[in-house]
Amino acid sequence: MTIIVHHLNNSRSQRILWLLEELGEAYDVRRYERDRKTMRAPDALRAVHPLGRSPVVEVDGHRLIETGAIMEYLVARAGGRFGAPTDAEGAIRWRQFLHYAEGSMMPPLLALLVVGKLGLLGRPARPTVQGMLDDHLDWLESELASRPYFAGPDFSAADMMMSFPIEASRARGGLDESRPHLIGWLERIQARPAYQAALRTGGHYAYA
Amino acid sequence: MTIIVHHLNNSRSQRILWLLEELGEAYDVRRYERDRKTMRAPDALRAVHPLGRSPVVEVDGHRLIETGAIMEYLVARAGGRFGAPTDAEGAIRWRQFLHYAEGSMMPPLLALLVVGKLGLLGRPARPTVQGMLDDHLDWLESELASRPYFAGPDFSAADMMMSFPIEASRARGGLDESRPHLIGWLERIQARPAYQAALRTGGHYAYA
Repeated sequence: MTIIVHHLNNSRSQRILWLLEELGEAYDVRRYERDRKTMRAPDALRAVHPLGRSPVVEVDGHRLIETGAIMEYLVARAGGRFGAPTDAEGAIRWRQFLHYAEGSMMPPLLALLVVGKLGLLGRPARPTVQGMLDDHLDWLESELASRPYFAGPDFSAADMMMSFPIEASRARGGLDESRPHLIGWLERIQARPAYQAALRTGGHYAYA
Repeated sequence: MTIIVHHLNNSRSQRILWLLEELGEAYDVRRYERDRKTMRAPDALRAVHPLGRSPVVEVDGHRLIETGAIMEYLVARAGGRFGAPTDAEGAIRWRQFLHYAEGSMMPPLLALLVVGKLGLLGRPARPTVQGMLDDHLDWLESELASRPYFAGPDFSAADMMMSFPIEASRARGGLDESRPHLIGWLERIQARPAYQAALRTGGHYAYA
């Protein structure tokens, strides 16, 4: 039974395509395009899942949502490839970053986006929100000073999860070469053949 | 070795106290108080973890952050109590809601908070953000129409994770009796003796 990825262009589902490429899994892509003006997902996604969000993955007769949960499922299904390191500290870091990427780091990025859309009106809130994000970037920079990947010495699903908020920070959150470990990590993961293959499959992706 | 919970009043760490009460684990609480004006965490939390956020938990010689990851660790350590149901669909839902609570539902609530702080200036953004949150509440209401708890027939860590965004929605996101399944679920979980015991330990909690 082939895996089906309901893929919204330029969205969180890009990471699922990437994981499937890394795993060498066969999959079909159902494509959805954002409205060019509002950037919102089309109503067609609501026919797949009532939240109308991306990604949605069909696998083994189940319909899965929530990127971190989908990644855990696909990693377990593949016998643990790109899963948690075997040492206790590494396993804790792996699980932590799988939750942290969307649970802690994306919220200030969403708030920045909302504040940005308000233009001048939003300006009073911007320093507070940027301050929240800077705290995250400072901490992550210090984490990558002591090891090449987020969970430990090896590339894993934790890095794939973390790509989206760090790419978003690079595009609109002030991440630049003043944080060299994060920039170096970003260049290494984006150079992976599976990342590049997923880009070709997924179509336009603003953060690549 | 006793578990230590670094607890910020009126925060996400309340759920960790609750889980430990449900599990009957011994734990010590290190208390941190929000600034009464800014509502921000004190700098003392940064001495415990550079992000300066709550919760932070010390257990088995490890220092854990990220509520969902802490819950997974504590549940696994307790032999799976309040963990995933044994059926495949239930297990998927359990993992999904563990990620979804902070990963998908809290971001619009944070955006609402930021927009609210802008007062009149923020008003143009409010309908969009409230619309995002309403989508979540509609879907969750439909989910609880077919089963009593988020993962399945039994109360689990997925419900403890979900308490915070649903309590926040009740306090400032428009959740009311027009969504009776969510309100009924909230009343059931808040009536649990362990929830009440954790409240006594944690101190003031605006959402209870």
